[in-house]
Amino acid sequence: MATDELISAIKEALATGDQARVLSLVEQSDPGQWPAVIPQLDESELPLLVEFLPEEELSDLLSEIEPIEAAQILRTLSHTQAADLLEAMAPDDATDVIDALPDEQAEQILIQMEPADAAEIRELLAFPPDSAGGIMTPGFVAISPNLRASQAIAALQRVSEEVETMYYVYVVDDEEHLLGVLSLHRLVLTRPDTPVRDLMVTDPVRIEANADREAAARLLVDRNLLALPVVDTSNRLLGIITQDDVADVLEEEATEDIERLGGSQPLDVPYRYAGISLLFRRRIFWLLLLFAAEAYTGTVMRHFEDELAQVVALSFFIPLLIGTGGNIGSQVTTTLVRAIAVGEISLRDARWVLAKELVVGLILGLVMAIVAFGRAQLLHVGSDVAFVISLTILAICVWSAAVAAVLPLIINRLRIDPAVVSAPLITTLVDGTGLVIYFTIAKRLLHL
Amino acid sequence: MATDELISAIKEALATGDQARVLSLVEQSDPGQWPAVIPQLDESELPLLVEFLPEEELSDLLSEIEPIEAAQILRTLSHTQAADLLEAMAPDDATDVIDALPDEQAEQILIQMEPADAAEIRELLAFPPDSAGGIMTPGFVAISPNLRASQAIAALQRVSEEVETMYYVYVVDDEEHLLGVLSLHRLVLTRPDTPVRDLMVTDPVRIEANADREAAARLLVDRNLLALPVVDTSNRLLGIITQDDVADVLEEEATEDIERLGGSQPLDVPYRYAGISLLFRRRIFWLLLLFAAEAYTGTVMRHFEDELAQVVALSFFIPLLIGTGGNIGSQVTTTLVRAIAVGEISLRDARWVLAKELVVGLILGLVMAIVAFGRAQLLHVGSDVAFVISLTILAICVWSAAVAAVLPLIINRLRIDPAVVSAPLITTLVDGTGLVIYFTIAKRLLHL
Repeated sequence: MATDELISAIKEALATGDQARVLSLVEQSDPGQWPAVIPQLDESELPLLVEFLPEEELSDLLSEIEPIEAAQILRTLSHTQAADLLEAMAPDDATDVIDALPDEQAEQILIQMEPADAAEIRELLAFPPDSAGGIMTPGFVAISPNLRASQAIAALQRVSEEVETMYYVYVVDDEEHLLGVLSLHRLVLTRPDTPVRDLMVTDPVRIEANADREAAARLLVDRNLLALPVVDTSNRLLGIITQDDVADVLEEEATEDIERLGGSQPLDVPYRYAGISLLFRRRIFWLLLLFAAEAYTGTVMRHFEDELAQVVALSFFIPLLIGTGGNIGSQVTTTLVRAIAVGEISLRDARWVLAKELVVGLILGLVMAIVAFGRAQLLHVGSDVAFVISLTILAICVWSAAVAAVLPLIINRLRIDPAVVSAPLITTLVDGTGLVIYFTIAKRLLHL
Repeated sequence: MATDELISAIKEALATGDQARVLSLVEQSDPGQWPAVIPQLDESELPLLVEFLPEEELSDLLSEIEPIEAAQILRTLSHTQAADLLEAMAPDDATDVIDALPDEQAEQILIQMEPADAAEIRELLAFPPDSAGGIMTPGFVAISPNLRASQAIAALQRVSEEVETMYYVYVVDDEEHLLGVLSLHRLVLTRPDTPVRDLMVTDPVRIEANADREAAARLLVDRNLLALPVVDTSNRLLGIITQDDVADVLEEEATEDIERLGGSQPLDVPYRYAGISLLFRRRIFWLLLLFAAEAYTGTVMRHFEDELAQVVALSFFIPLLIGTGGNIGSQVTTTLVRAIAVGEISLRDARWVLAKELVVGLILGLVMAIVAFGRAQLLHVGSDVAFVISLTILAICVWSAAVAAVLPLIINRLRIDPAVVSAPLITTLVDGTGLVIYFTIAKRLLHL
């Protein structure tokens, strides 16, 4: 059923109070549809949906949607009900929801939970959300190296309900130091009496809990793992990061980069939940900074006031010239910032990157110069001015390509996210310098 | 070992012809490092590396790096050698490499391959690279519903070398129609004589081969699957898409969006392999289109030539005013394009999105108006002009936020990628209209 149909069907069933229909709709639906459905339900419909669904369905649904949405739903329930739902969720998902609740409310719900479940969540809360520890789950299987294959399988059967992934079994010593890893199919396809010690892969890929979550996600992808063990600084196994977290992390990181490239600070919450005040705060910093940088254009223009007064036609082309420079700059910088983000290039590639961008900038500049000459003729500004426009656009294209090629690489080297070299930033930088190029060429060629 | 160290160590070992050292470096390294290492080796070093490595290591390495790089390495080898290496790779990876070779060379290598392997690749080549079929692999396990659990495990043991993932077993009828799916742990944790028919999940999540690869990737993520079966239009099982392909697909789609948002057409190849001519072709289209749109600013300025001649100071603020409008537009559009891409908002949300952006634009505009008034005073242009500037910037901020909020939603509704509403496009649209706003306000208030 398409998401739009699902939304209207659910709304209808809720309106008529048809619990059986709601249940069957939820069961038929894709879990992936819920993040789109929940925000479409209004404040009178949500409590009814919560009331109609059994605890298990509801906790599944809460795991699927954004933590901030799940938190809003929990706030409509009693602390005991909320605690029961959180207990039924995977600990990493439950932690994200608790994190999205106001501190006091979170505390009251934690107090109502089973002490063991609450303790797990409290441990996970201690890690920053953007660290490997912040996305791990404690739902792993760990066994002693002294077991045999058949005993390991029996151990698995006992815990199969509680763990998030059964495809890897971790081998730890008495103090929980990570010794090795064993895949389920290796365990199955071997003789039952083989000791785990002989089957395990020693020195497995792992990551420290305080490492960056993006590094963890990329490691999981690069090594084609289904789960990555997370250890503390003394190699004690704390949790695992599973494949289903990777896509989320990579998507969130891409979202951050895109928001930065557009010239704002990342929202860190879904757009829907970004209030007016948050949007304002995330945007005003760069707007003011860019305004301050762009204000320089006023000084440049004032400096060339006499030339502008003599040839008013020069001002006609200002937006076109600096606009084209900004466009090339934006093309170059976004391509490079992305190439840096996926690890394709770094400062050591600066030389060939610059050379390539200069050549492309030169060719683009030549084409644009011809087109600009034609456009100037159409405005009847005279061949002199048209020639100035052509030469300026060529110079601005090359200049802009060079700045946009080098700046992200240098910024990245300084360990600042290269995405701060946004399209608006490059545009702003090229605006002022472009005007200087323009008036200098005009002054020389038109003998002003 | 860090990537930089690895690169110098490998270069040194190759220079001294120390094969054992090369081998041990390759074995110690992370597979994830190879995409960064290979491009750093020069044309004399690559053939030596290929010569030193055993076939198995080499085919693993070729699977890790970009298909276009793997293709370049294959071109240095004989067709027979190339064929042997491709046979050792997973069919989906081998297909990507064949796809990156010139047609004639690809054909000659396919002829040298084992007929069965070549046939698999030819089948996969038939699907467009951006379809679900284009990223699937035929390396799955399919069994009859009439087997028992123990027989199924025995069947798995026989094929364990050849399949890409063993975590799911697919159940098909005699004509290969997909009937159900069975997870390995379900198979293991049950009584050996249970019929497969009773264990399998019927009507499993699947995708048609001609569906979009991004849809396939999101389905896999949303449903938390380790592998997704790909079927033809009559529900015959053709292959599976595994978790390791998902991150690649999502990353590539994010790269495309980012490149579009920067104002160029997507490169579709890694930046390193994008030649001058490709970069030129991907950029010139939008540059010319934006130039044509921006050329309108010249007409506007010409129209207000008299006013400009009377108050030259008005021109000082042109870049600043339209620049700020462009910046707000870029902030709004990139945030919204991303929210659309991840499925968070669509046209049905247009009303509240517009309302929210108008309010934020108004507040931002008020702040910028105050700052702009101060800046105008610094340039000693008189309070009249300063007031015009303030009022204009307020109007431009609101206008720009409105355009940038609505346009991506409409474009998306027209089934065009909303990322074409790039920062440069919004900037360009706002430039011309911003000038009209500016001069209209100036004319009224300054009585020109």
